[in-house]
Amino acid sequence: MEQAQIDTVDLSVVSEDPACSETALPALDSWITPTERFYIRSHFSEVPNVDVSSWSLKVDGEVERSLDLSFEDLKSLPARSAVVTLECAGNSRSYVTPPAEGLRFGHGAVGNAEWTGVPLHELLSRAGPKKGAVEALFEGTDAGEEEEEGLTLEIEYARSLPMAKAMSDDTLVAYLMNGEPLEPAHGYPVRLIVPGWYGMASVKWLRRVSLLPRPYQGFFQGRRYVRITDGESRPSWEPVKSVGVKSLITRPRHGEVVRQGEFTVHGVAWSGDGAIEGLELSTDGGRSWREAELFGPESAGAWRRWKFPWTPSTPGHFILMSRAVDSAGNTQPASIPWNFRGYANNSIHTIAVEVPAE
Amino acid sequence: MEQAQIDTVDLSVVSEDPACSETALPALDSWITPTERFYIRSHFSEVPNVDVSSWSLKVDGEVERSLDLSFEDLKSLPARSAVVTLECAGNSRSYVTPPAEGLRFGHGAVGNAEWTGVPLHELLSRAGPKKGAVEALFEGTDAGEEEEEGLTLEIEYARSLPMAKAMSDDTLVAYLMNGEPLEPAHGYPVRLIVPGWYGMASVKWLRRVSLLPRPYQGFFQGRRYVRITDGESRPSWEPVKSVGVKSLITRPRHGEVVRQGEFTVHGVAWSGDGAIEGLELSTDGGRSWREAELFGPESAGAWRRWKFPWTPSTPGHFILMSRAVDSAGNTQPASIPWNFRGYANNSIHTIAVEVPAE
Repeated sequence: MEQAQIDTVDLSVVSEDPACSETALPALDSWITPTERFYIRSHFSEVPNVDVSSWSLKVDGEVERSLDLSFEDLKSLPARSAVVTLECAGNSRSYVTPPAEGLRFGHGAVGNAEWTGVPLHELLSRAGPKKGAVEALFEGTDAGEEEEEGLTLEIEYARSLPMAKAMSDDTLVAYLMNGEPLEPAHGYPVRLIVPGWYGMASVKWLRRVSLLPRPYQGFFQGRRYVRITDGESRPSWEPVKSVGVKSLITRPRHGEVVRQGEFTVHGVAWSGDGAIEGLELSTDGGRSWREAELFGPESAGAWRRWKFPWTPSTPGHFILMSRAVDSAGNTQPASIPWNFRGYANNSIHTIAVEVPAE
Repeated sequence: MEQAQIDTVDLSVVSEDPACSETALPALDSWITPTERFYIRSHFSEVPNVDVSSWSLKVDGEVERSLDLSFEDLKSLPARSAVVTLECAGNSRSYVTPPAEGLRFGHGAVGNAEWTGVPLHELLSRAGPKKGAVEALFEGTDAGEEEEEGLTLEIEYARSLPMAKAMSDDTLVAYLMNGEPLEPAHGYPVRLIVPGWYGMASVKWLRRVSLLPRPYQGFFQGRRYVRITDGESRPSWEPVKSVGVKSLITRPRHGEVVRQGEFTVHGVAWSGDGAIEGLELSTDGGRSWREAELFGPESAGAWRRWKFPWTPSTPGHFILMSRAVDSAGNTQPASIPWNFRGYANNSIHTIAVEVPAE
């Protein structure tokens, strides 16, 4: 099968090895993020090159009947499509103070795509979960080395979900992205899509689903994607799960020179804990806030676009800030409590622009 | 005259052109910063290579008698020494949010050195300031190109001081740094030293002092080293002058792994507006603060060292913060009001360290 090359227009490289890229914010200013602009988060040196003719998806563990499905078997099952926002847990890490451990993602490790595949519960129901199953473990084809406390570990990428989330209608075993077969960098031939959770849960190059009698504690579950805060008076160690409510200003860009006259500020907003209910914009560095207009398609698990007509009052420098509120009443903080790897930074997006004298 | 090469140990390059370097924080953990570790802020491609035999210092403008002093003339005048902290106005710019325009200095564009030279008022008294003189303008030998609004400008480095500051006992025309002739990068043969003001006032490669009948508005006075904040509801345009109260944790380093048991946290603190009266340290991310001990030499215009014995209560990650108070009652803010070029960031220094289980 011919695989198109990932175009690097509007994608910038965050790391060569592992291959990670993020999207320029103006390129996020649409409902659907085109595949060639979608952020990439790999964990190992090698991007798996899966031969679909020999690939199969195994379903085993605490099940009545193990399954071993070919790509054709999978595609013959009932499918659905959903538009889902994926955000890397390390998105916006560069703006955490003091600097946090990990790849230096800006704000562009997020995107919104249409995913098509088989609801995971279709597979699990066919396999018949046993009573004792508490989690579903997902194994990718990707493997390699990780450094940990001076040791080099040989590991495979794997993550688990609680059974309730695994059985949710929305959790998909996806084989199309924006209507096309997945690109290799996005998990070809098959990846998991877990709406509402940070991207690490949406395991790429999926090859096995195992139901477990007890919680999984592997490397990418117990050593990474964990919010470690400080230990003095409030030790805390908390796995990263659902996506915090967040918004980005996509236009103008930080540092842009904006002409006098009306300018429409654009952006996107999303939350793993509910629908976006409102978006407030400040054009005076947070001293006052006004409601922006939410517009465009609305779909559970997907971001919402917003816009705000702005007429700068004078020439000068302006500080624009966006703050979203979700249906659970969550809003964005000025800054997040610091955590060692800088995960889940959903603080208010702030940019500065210049309006020159005519 | 033989000029030693600047050693790059403990100095890291911030910019190749113009040549700018900053000091690693552990290398700031002493009363005097050795010259070879002292930060460098140049403004142009070329570092002046002044021939001292043909160099002279002119004093002119609104004076009764113009002067033209050779290096030997200057050295024959009454001299004094003072230990003075210099901090670049762009120090800590990298930690301003959103990102500010300018070179990406971390926290290391600061240092404390002994400077020896002639008090400027000795020269000005000999020249006889006229009644109409309101400012003293200082011209350096450095010149080159700057980009501004799409234009390339050919300019020389020049800055002014109000007469009162120029006539202060403390303002020096210095020719020794830490007891040795100035290095070329630090202004050989002669530079101004203006205690209490950000480094841009301490003009290097000084060649002329002119008393002016009206305030100077040249490039590095009116277009740079100006705090431009936002224009929506509180337009602000304010030249950067005196150094805001500030402190740094020099040991441990951000990200350091610290063994269990007692550890002495070290640092430095300074202010352009008075003596350092106290230093508070938090080891729990700002929830509680305790007094550190100020120690070592005390001298007007110089930084003060401080230390704090800390016994981490548990293994884990810890967030350390330092906050100085000066004799004018100023203290460090959690963050500064954003300004376009990120000048004068004196916000609380925050680092994270890890204490492993034994």
